[in-house]
Amino acid sequence: MSFLGQLYGRAPALLTDLYQLTMAYAHWHYGSGEREAVFHLFFREAPFNNGFAIACGIETAVEYVTRLSFSDADIDYLSTLKDNAGDALFEADFLAYLRDLRFTGDIDAVPEGTAVFAHQPMLRVRAPIIQAQLLESALLNIMNFPTLVATKAARIAHAAGDDPVLDFGLRKAQGIDGGVSAARAAYIGGCAGTSNVLAGQLFGIPVSGTHAHGWVMAFDDEIDAFDAYAAALPDNCIFLVDTYDTLEGIDNAIRAGHRLRERGHEMAGIRLDSGDLSELSKTARRMLDAAGFPEAKIAASSSLDEKVVAELKREGAPIVLWGVGTRLTTAQPDAALDGVYKLAAIRNDAGQWSYRMKLSDTPGKLTRPGVHQVRRFLEDGLPVADLLFDAAAANTAWAGTHGEHCHAFEPDAPHIDLLVPAVRAGAPAGAAPPLADVRAHAREQFACFAARSDYPALIDRYLEESTHALRDWLAHRGERAVEPANEA
Amino acid sequence: MSFLGQLYGRAPALLTDLYQLTMAYAHWHYGSGEREAVFHLFFREAPFNNGFAIACGIETAVEYVTRLSFSDADIDYLSTLKDNAGDALFEADFLAYLRDLRFTGDIDAVPEGTAVFAHQPMLRVRAPIIQAQLLESALLNIMNFPTLVATKAARIAHAAGDDPVLDFGLRKAQGIDGGVSAARAAYIGGCAGTSNVLAGQLFGIPVSGTHAHGWVMAFDDEIDAFDAYAAALPDNCIFLVDTYDTLEGIDNAIRAGHRLRERGHEMAGIRLDSGDLSELSKTARRMLDAAGFPEAKIAASSSLDEKVVAELKREGAPIVLWGVGTRLTTAQPDAALDGVYKLAAIRNDAGQWSYRMKLSDTPGKLTRPGVHQVRRFLEDGLPVADLLFDAAAANTAWAGTHGEHCHAFEPDAPHIDLLVPAVRAGAPAGAAPPLADVRAHAREQFACFAARSDYPALIDRYLEESTHALRDWLAHRGERAVEPANEA
Repeated sequence: MSFLGQLYGRAPALLTDLYQLTMAYAHWHYGSGEREAVFHLFFREAPFNNGFAIACGIETAVEYVTRLSFSDADIDYLSTLKDNAGDALFEADFLAYLRDLRFTGDIDAVPEGTAVFAHQPMLRVRAPIIQAQLLESALLNIMNFPTLVATKAARIAHAAGDDPVLDFGLRKAQGIDGGVSAARAAYIGGCAGTSNVLAGQLFGIPVSGTHAHGWVMAFDDEIDAFDAYAAALPDNCIFLVDTYDTLEGIDNAIRAGHRLRERGHEMAGIRLDSGDLSELSKTARRMLDAAGFPEAKIAASSSLDEKVVAELKREGAPIVLWGVGTRLTTAQPDAALDGVYKLAAIRNDAGQWSYRMKLSDTPGKLTRPGVHQVRRFLEDGLPVADLLFDAAAANTAWAGTHGEHCHAFEPDAPHIDLLVPAVRAGAPAGAAPPLADVRAHAREQFACFAARSDYPALIDRYLEESTHALRDWLAHRGERAVEPANEA
Repeated sequence: MSFLGQLYGRAPALLTDLYQLTMAYAHWHYGSGEREAVFHLFFREAPFNNGFAIACGIETAVEYVTRLSFSDADIDYLSTLKDNAGDALFEADFLAYLRDLRFTGDIDAVPEGTAVFAHQPMLRVRAPIIQAQLLESALLNIMNFPTLVATKAARIAHAAGDDPVLDFGLRKAQGIDGGVSAARAAYIGGCAGTSNVLAGQLFGIPVSGTHAHGWVMAFDDEIDAFDAYAAALPDNCIFLVDTYDTLEGIDNAIRAGHRLRERGHEMAGIRLDSGDLSELSKTARRMLDAAGFPEAKIAASSSLDEKVVAELKREGAPIVLWGVGTRLTTAQPDAALDGVYKLAAIRNDAGQWSYRMKLSDTPGKLTRPGVHQVRRFLEDGLPVADLLFDAAAANTAWAGTHGEHCHAFEPDAPHIDLLVPAVRAGAPAGAAPPLADVRAHAREQFACFAARSDYPALIDRYLEESTHALRDWLAHRGERAVEPANEA
């Protein structure tokens, strides 16, 4: 039992926008619901100008899809909905159909933690259109936010180098789930742990924390507060020193640290939560060293993000433990991933793929038809280029463009295909990897691609040509929909 | 059973930052846990430069606090945590204490939907400090985000005037809870409904929706898609017209509308989801009117927020239905409310209140000691000024300053006190009001204060004086903590 099972005890089928249900009803009514369709879940622009994102939420998406079913209570609720004329919105026969509906299709997904670029599918759903369309809202809800936060966490962890970064964002998250899913995504992205105890319980993420300003304020004097804390938790002492006056707080921490040492314990460190972190951390380091506490760590936790961490590193701030809250959990300044879920192909009456795309005046919003796969070519085991191609078409060009450059490939050159089976005929294609493995994969992926701002994430020439042909047809309606030259 | 009960089936006690538990343990160990303390939950800066916020999340906060208990599984998990020396972080006797812990204190809160200003408590907790401190993370998680979204929704609804605004944000929310709590807060703030079916089921919020681009793309021609939808849902037709070419889409909607009319139904309207909404909506209005559909509504849903809606209104765009997604649910550009939960008073050994405050170089971050209440003075039933004062001190000045102006009041002049009993001795002080009543209250509050950018939200002079006295004492340590001159 995974995320949804542990947190909610179910995968709520009504986690959807109403229009998914009205479309399902209209497909059912029209008789078009069983036509096989392909949808891609992808983003059009990487967040934070990062170039790529760390795909996250896959395990939860698989859990949702494979557990999906409408309960009697769900059906009862849907039966109460009215249309604009005051009549029942849905026929009873459709609701009976929904009651028995299960996902029976296939999903291919990138392994959780994989670096993905714009237009590359993180998930590809192939199922009767009534099912595939119905999943849109839930899959986007489950994937968009974790992918955003995993990417943000990876950026912050990258800026912090080998220092541990901790997620402190619970209090600013969108409810319990927001806090828990942010903690999970942040851990995958590279955080070393979280303050969120529920996330620790559910996922085994390391939890950490010592005390807040409220602890110090509960005592008449700061030193009394430190001593009292140390009496209870002598091996968990990171003293928060900025409740009143930070330099005096560091002095008090040193006094408490000496008394701890007399009792055979070591102060773990101090935490700065306000002020000029660069100056204060340098002063604190000097004071701690001079007092005989060279091993005491300096933690910081004030409105941090990757830019602030990088700047403090540049300034030589001797901070070695980073607590990140609001700007991680709300992923400022972006706050949302622009992930979308778009129909790309549907079987025609003859059972062949008929390609579909959304037109837009904004070139970046134009969707590409086909049944996509991403081939990541390797040299000496390291990625050299990605190629998005149509896996259902035989005449892939194995060549694409990226800026000024054109790249061509031998299709059998060393490579991996990013999309791998996640769901087959409605059942999980395998067990999800342990969270620690996902995290290690994400760390390796981020490190690999963060240094490659010119990495060529290409789109196959044939795919671009079929896109242009379909766009022209849609614009001029001169001929029928484009079908692939050969079908896989 | 309310939010948490319906969504999670419980109020998870581990919804907290670890440091709340280590502080609780240290209080338990030191013997200071039973001293009565007062904490205030407030924000220091209103979001969106709005001047005030719409308080939201109160009902859920009360539910959380009054249901709080640690399960055996929670205790088992906590028993596995280790300190830096590898020993158990918590003693078994403390865990046994936690197992039996229930909240026994009092909470006063503003009625949900009330307009609150910076430094005014939305919640005031009075309880043994071990309990009151333990609630911090959960209360902030439960209050911060809904208050932010209710305020954002109120701003958008205000910009839209009498037009309905619908929440379409599920796909960008932080998980299931993020989507559901955003829908609830958005409804309280003034949205007319949501696309989120789960929120409709749980809270009775009106749900709405018709179809997406994916519906149109599933058919060979747009007109076939509209006709097929209309066949199934003739009284729920708002045709999305921008899948390919918007003007052609409007033409197709009109054709489908005529056929609907022949069958005795009326097209409800069309929806624009991209492009120049001002120009397109005016063109669409002319086309619909000319074709005999003056009653067909024009809906819009493309990256909308209060600024875009207001600008479209100024330009005379004939849009009458607004679907708001990302910028509502993620409350861009702020993304988080800076709500905090701060200790303000604790009983001394003699049982008297001893006042506490957090110092900071940033004046806005300085906290005010006392047991706060907010008196909202009225004239002819309308608010004229708020006064934050210390309800535990008898010598309130009943006067405060606001910018250049000084205001003095007769304490018995017509007024309401904003904080009212929410929890007494650990039990709910009354039933939560129906959601529709909360929404009506919030609408009335927003309308009242939105027009009053100079509204005087004052802080009592005595409270400022005691704050200054305590700050001076903390800075100079020349005397003991400030105690109130008289205690209520």
